[in-house]
Amino acid sequence: MFLDEIIRRSLEEDLGSGDITTKYLDLEPTIATAFMIAKAEGVIAGAEIAKMVFKTVDPDLKITLYRKDGDSVVKGDEIMRIEGKPSSILQGERTALNFLQRLSGIATKTNRMVKLIEGTKTKLLDTRKTTPLLRSLEKHAVRIGGGFNHRAGLFDMILIKENHIRAAGGITSAINRVKQHNTTYRVEVEVTNAEEVKEAFTVGVDRIMLDNMSLKEIRAAVKAYGKKVEFEVSGGITEDNILAYARTGVDFISSGALTHSYQSLDISLLFKE
Amino acid sequence: MFLDEIIRRSLEEDLGSGDITTKYLDLEPTIATAFMIAKAEGVIAGAEIAKMVFKTVDPDLKITLYRKDGDSVVKGDEIMRIEGKPSSILQGERTALNFLQRLSGIATKTNRMVKLIEGTKTKLLDTRKTTPLLRSLEKHAVRIGGGFNHRAGLFDMILIKENHIRAAGGITSAINRVKQHNTTYRVEVEVTNAEEVKEAFTVGVDRIMLDNMSLKEIRAAVKAYGKKVEFEVSGGITEDNILAYARTGVDFISSGALTHSYQSLDISLLFKE
Amino acid sequence: MFLDEIIRRSLEEDLGSGDITTKYLDLEPTIATAFMIAKAEGVIAGAEIAKMVFKTVDPDLKITLYRKDGDSVVKGDEIMRIEGKPSSILQGERTALNFLQRLSGIATKTNRMVKLIEGTKTKLLDTRKTTPLLRSLEKHAVRIGGGFNHRAGLFDMILIKENHIRAAGGITSAINRVKQHNTTYRVEVEVTNAEEVKEAFTVGVDRIMLDNMSLKEIRAAVKAYGKKVEFEVSGGITEDNILAYARTGVDFISSGALTHSYQSLDISLLFKE
Amino acid sequence: MFLDEIIRRSLEEDLGSGDITTKYLDLEPTIATAFMIAKAEGVIAGAEIAKMVFKTVDPDLKITLYRKDGDSVVKGDEIMRIEGKPSSILQGERTALNFLQRLSGIATKTNRMVKLIEGTKTKLLDTRKTTPLLRSLEKHAVRIGGGFNHRAGLFDMILIKENHIRAAGGITSAINRVKQHNTTYRVEVEVTNAEEVKEAFTVGVDRIMLDNMSLKEIRAAVKAYGKKVEFEVSGGITEDNILAYARTGVDFISSGALTHSYQSLDISLLFKE
Amino acid sequence: MFLDEIIRRSLEEDLGSGDITTKYLDLEPTIATAFMIAKAEGVIAGAEIAKMVFKTVDPDLKITLYRKDGDSVVKGDEIMRIEGKPSSILQGERTALNFLQRLSGIATKTNRMVKLIEGTKTKLLDTRKTTPLLRSLEKHAVRIGGGFNHRAGLFDMILIKENHIRAAGGITSAINRVKQHNTTYRVEVEVTNAEEVKEAFTVGVDRIMLDNMSLKEIRAAVKAYGKKVEFEVSGGITEDNILAYARTGVDFISSGALTHSYQSLDISLLFKE
Amino acid sequence: MFLDEIIRRSLEEDLGSGDITTKYLDLEPTIATAFMIAKAEGVIAGAEIAKMVFKTVDPDLKITLYRKDGDSVVKGDEIMRIEGKPSSILQGERTALNFLQRLSGIATKTNRMVKLIEGTKTKLLDTRKTTPLLRSLEKHAVRIGGGFNHRAGLFDMILIKENHIRAAGGITSAINRVKQHNTTYRVEVEVTNAEEVKEAFTVGVDRIMLDNMSLKEIRAAVKAYGKKVEFEVSGGITEDNILAYARTGVDFISSGALTHSYQSLDISLLFKE
Repeated sequence: MFLDEIIRRSLEEDLGSGDITTKYLDLEPTIATAFMIAKAEGVIAGAEIAKMVFKTVDPDLKITLYRKDGDSVVKGDEIMRIEGKPSSILQGERTALNFLQRLSGIATKTNRMVKLIEGTKTKLLDTRKTTPLLRSLEKHAVRIGGGFNHRAGLFDMILIKENHIRAAGGITSAINRVKQHNTTYRVEVEVTNAEEVKEAFTVGVDRIMLDNMSLKEIRAAVKAYGKKVEFEVSGGITEDNILAYARTGVDFISSGALTHSYQSLDISLLFKE
Repeated sequence: MFLDEIIRRSLEEDLGSGDITTKYLDLEPTIATAFMIAKAEGVIAGAEIAKMVFKTVDPDLKITLYRKDGDSVVKGDEIMRIEGKPSSILQGERTALNFLQRLSGIATKTNRMVKLIEGTKTKLLDTRKTTPLLRSLEKHAVRIGGGFNHRAGLFDMILIKENHIRAAGGITSAINRVKQHNTTYRVEVEVTNAEEVKEAFTVGVDRIMLDNMSLKEIRAAVKAYGKKVEFEVSGGITEDNILAYARTGVDFISSGALTHSYQSLDISLLFKE
Repeated sequence: MFLDEIIRRSLEEDLGSGDITTKYLDLEPTIATAFMIAKAEGVIAGAEIAKMVFKTVDPDLKITLYRKDGDSVVKGDEIMRIEGKPSSILQGERTALNFLQRLSGIATKTNRMVKLIEGTKTKLLDTRKTTPLLRSLEKHAVRIGGGFNHRAGLFDMILIKENHIRAAGGITSAINRVKQHNTTYRVEVEVTNAEEVKEAFTVGVDRIMLDNMSLKEIRAAVKAYGKKVEFEVSGGITEDNILAYARTGVDFISSGALTHSYQSLDISLLFKE
Repeated sequence: MFLDEIIRRSLEEDLGSGDITTKYLDLEPTIATAFMIAKAEGVIAGAEIAKMVFKTVDPDLKITLYRKDGDSVVKGDEIMRIEGKPSSILQGERTALNFLQRLSGIATKTNRMVKLIEGTKTKLLDTRKTTPLLRSLEKHAVRIGGGFNHRAGLFDMILIKENHIRAAGGITSAINRVKQHNTTYRVEVEVTNAEEVKEAFTVGVDRIMLDNMSLKEIRAAVKAYGKKVEFEVSGGITEDNILAYARTGVDFISSGALTHSYQSLDISLLFKE
Repeated sequence: MFLDEIIRRSLEEDLGSGDITTKYLDLEPTIATAFMIAKAEGVIAGAEIAKMVFKTVDPDLKITLYRKDGDSVVKGDEIMRIEGKPSSILQGERTALNFLQRLSGIATKTNRMVKLIEGTKTKLLDTRKTTPLLRSLEKHAVRIGGGFNHRAGLFDMILIKENHIRAAGGITSAINRVKQHNTTYRVEVEVTNAEEVKEAFTVGVDRIMLDNMSLKEIRAAVKAYGKKVEFEVSGGITEDNILAYARTGVDFISSGALTHSYQSLDISLLFKE
Repeated sequence: MFLDEIIRRSLEEDLGSGDITTKYLDLEPTIATAFMIAKAEGVIAGAEIAKMVFKTVDPDLKITLYRKDGDSVVKGDEIMRIEGKPSSILQGERTALNFLQRLSGIATKTNRMVKLIEGTKTKLLDTRKTTPLLRSLEKHAVRIGGGFNHRAGLFDMILIKENHIRAAGGITSAINRVKQHNTTYRVEVEVTNAEEVKEAFTVGVDRIMLDNMSLKEIRAAVKAYGKKVEFEVSGGITEDNILAYARTGVDFISSGALTHSYQSLDISLLFKE
């Protein structure tokens, strides 16, 4: 879905057969001013999307962004200003916040983990463990937080996993089969021990994913082949252990938690007195 | 969107122009068996949806549910069994898990909070702070966890908030305006102090939302009007303080965190040896 | 569907693979002026929708509304003025009229019935007997005519009908089952005799629908419980008997005929000499 | 829209965020049997569509049609039998009836007018004055009632109206312009007096529409050119005057009222004891 | 599909999860100017569509058309000028060209064949052998090239083919069956020999399609009935033989090759130094 | 769009408001058998799609494929057999053929070019010069013909073109900018002379596209760097010169003509006597 369709359908979900509170209040038209205010510290992502939500509800709303994606906020900071009909502001409020808070939550968590490995060569990657229908937005938030994007889906990178390997009769066979057809995509293979690292390296791939291997095994793999192939570590990464993994010298650490277990950033919409 | 469209578009998001790993592996067709296994303790929600994901990818996949929505699992429990072409299983895996893990995460968190207030008369409600496009699924997960659903959107209950009140020139005026047109919906009004509680009660509504009021103020409101109107407490509810709020005797506590800041339940898909 | 999609698809239905008359006439571009003229007496509803139809065909058309929704017209009154390319006007004409005439027909019929019960406390309600895909427009027309809206669909009010009652094992059981889960919606129950009225009242609901009961029975019900529960009369309401029903003192009369058996208001589009 | 999409979206309109009555009743699954019963005399149209509505709600419902499109019914006749889960039957009921009653209403009205002109050579035509989004269904109902279809939209027949004529600088010019491009479509031209009939006939068209002309003028036109060109009468046709128009010997009479001002046929769904 | 939806989805096909080259180049915003340049001789069709593609990508792009549909170009001619952000131009480039080159290819081929039969009374028709989803655009290109449109689909003209005839029990029976219901559409019948021509003419149709008949047979048919019915020749028409067919005096020659086997016109987008 | 939506909308394009020939013939239901017959030599692609078209029109049609994608046919070969209602076969015929003929045309042309370079190491690639909305089908046909797929769109491979280079201030700068963000995609850069080849190689990319360079220059590039980077030749490839280009030792030759200027394979549907 294009972004405007995501926004439109999200509004449809909330508005359904009509905002009955506003309809039955039947107020005289007036102009009000409201502000999005940060209630906690974090990194903003989704500001433009929140703006689009309001403009979709009512093109006459005037939106001023005080913070753009990637900016840091502390409690009390004004993120954006919305001016126009109160009923329009209230109809967009919840949907705009539902996007902005979630995406800022992802950017904030990503940024925290990226800072933990600053100074190492390791890049933090996201995964496909994203919210259904919102993947491109969540991957945008990861970039905003300082992370890098792994593949966007099953369609833009080849990742040979354990089960592919078994079905193909081994690592060597799986990689060779893929090479016969592929002219466009990077090839990554998932391995679980030193022997498999060696086999994958020998037959030739772009990247080797070390799945749930010990720090010691990872260091050994990097030492043996790290200049000739990329290494990615995956599985069980937390804020507590990420630096240790990064110090093994791997090129990438991928973390599903960036998008599947974050906290929404606390943000409120307040009308000005 | 109907559920089948949500599922279909979620798969479209992941499959895009095609699963290139499977396409280029070009394997002989075989039949494999895989299992969804819980990796942590929790309450399952979304089992039927995960099943629908697999059936949408390939109607020939055979799915057996060992756990249904609402069942508890501990680490190691088998949740469902999927049998069929490995490529079909792998194409559905991530999307199925992305639904199942999130919804089970919501059910698990909800269930934990519901248990904390067991024995009180208070019911735990969700809010509209849900993931855009997935609200009906997330509200289903709340029910599965033992919570109750607040309104589904702006269209099915009237909730007069602070800003409506200001625009209408006061609580009494706002409620009366709404009553003039409304024949179908319950009316709730948000108040912030004892005086407003009294005004709302006097003009007459179905429910009064006590927004960020102290335990003492809440107890006083319940004592004064609790038999004649419903009370809902909202704002700043955590696992640490929910019981104290419930013991004030309010009818409802609503919590946005149920759907905006949960952890996905850890679940894996494993192929059988 | 959002209103703009309803309009767009309605135009698609009429224009299909293209307006061949205009295409093959291949006229020089000129500017023409046309008027929507009432050919009979009635209440206008759908003026803004008709305007949107023309603007969807051609954003350069200039539309001036002489009558807005709720205004009365008599034969000969100008409702709106459309200025622009004749081909655009002709492409929008039929679709715009198809909306405007139907909705004005509903508003006119509703208004006639509302006037018949003026002075009583009874409100006239619509039903779900609306044209598929056009419900929200038709319910808007009912409001414009002075009626009130019953529920918008199966999703925003609980209405326990005869068959629900039978399946649940009786009125008391049905209502109690619903109360166990419901925290958001008004509950109405359909009854057919005095004994059922009593049972429904005793277990407690927001509204009781008296289905095809005699005027005498209705009066008795209102007398017994009318101050403590809402009553709605349904079934067989006509312009001839509506006042008699209203005089029983019921709160609501609902009429399917408002939307399933009205006459389109006669309106023509005429080009100015 | 394809028929299945019309049905699906109509159900979506009624079901919205879910049938809360059924959801909250939370009944044990049972099997019920219901019947569609005619409450008045008429001609059935839309029986297959009503069936599709139920099958879309729940493919496990078993539908038996006792009457097919075109069959006559009298009060009390069973039209179809629906067997399955009561909740599924109730969720489809209103939408199925909303289609069936409207289309049968059109077929019934059409049939009444067709019978009035039986024995003449004149065929009764519909118009484009149909309900937005439902045109193909309504035109089907007209055929079921014994009428014939005029053009389906602006795309399948050329109809040169008064305003086209003025813009093109006269009847002759308009027809000649169209002939230069057209190789596929019949050409009809609208005229208002004898002189224009002559001009249209002379330059050559397939059909001449006599708009609001007197019976005498119509008879004269038919006498002069009736064997060499088709004549269609349009404007102000009622059940009272249709036979007089038909007796003028015109080929077609077109009536907008067939689809814009009919009464729904009274049909109920009843559960079997 | 409306044109804007065709364009939108075409862009979606190319852009998918995002233009990664532009995204990762992360260039400062600048303004560039590009030109569509003809690399071969031909007739332009689709210029407005190419413009719409660019405006859909970025409404801020400024497009100036130097050639409009129907204009001839030779190698080196500038067709249009695009000014704006280079990333926007590059994102629209391929899709705009994919439309413009194909449609200009059709217009060019059509124009070449039309010129071959100039001076005869025969008109060149297209067929339904068009690219799925793009028929209305391709038929537009045929008109631009000087051809005429045959029916737009199965819905706007009646064409009785060999198999219909067989199923109906003969030409006479098939035509009579159709006449019983049809009041709107021209009727054409496909025949393969002189005897069938006679039968079709006798029962009466608007047009007779002579399918794969010899020049001699065609001439005979035209001589016998050419003043009283239209003739269309179909099957095996090439640039080499089209004039011979036209000289038989038939009204129409239809050619599937116009839309199923053309060459895209060579056009490039070049950025200005 | 998913394949089923492409098919559905293609049928909608052809069927529009209904197949009037079949509707008005109003034939008794019978069962007929038809065959798709090759009228020329070629390689079949799209057989499954043609089957899906027929099944979408009428799930009761029985389709037997005698040839699958990739099979060669000569004139007279039966490709598939369709059995069922004649009206269903006729409604699917043209759309099924429009897919099958185009895709087989692409597979046939691709196969001819692939055979011309057999024995060399060079692989033939397609481009993004595909028909809007049908890219995935056309790229499938290229693979069926023995070619390989270049990127599917702007989203799955990085291709730095001349204009990107200029905007980034040179080849080195452009490549380095991209490398800073990219962790997933292969990087290709377009060059036009030996000096640029050297620069691209030095800064490091996965593939170098030699755009309109002479055979001599290409040979020199391959000799210098061919073992360390992939080379792709693009621009002006024809059946006459492709072998000469392949013999330079480049890895890939890409050809837009495979999808923008092919001839539909001649295939007919014939009903069995």
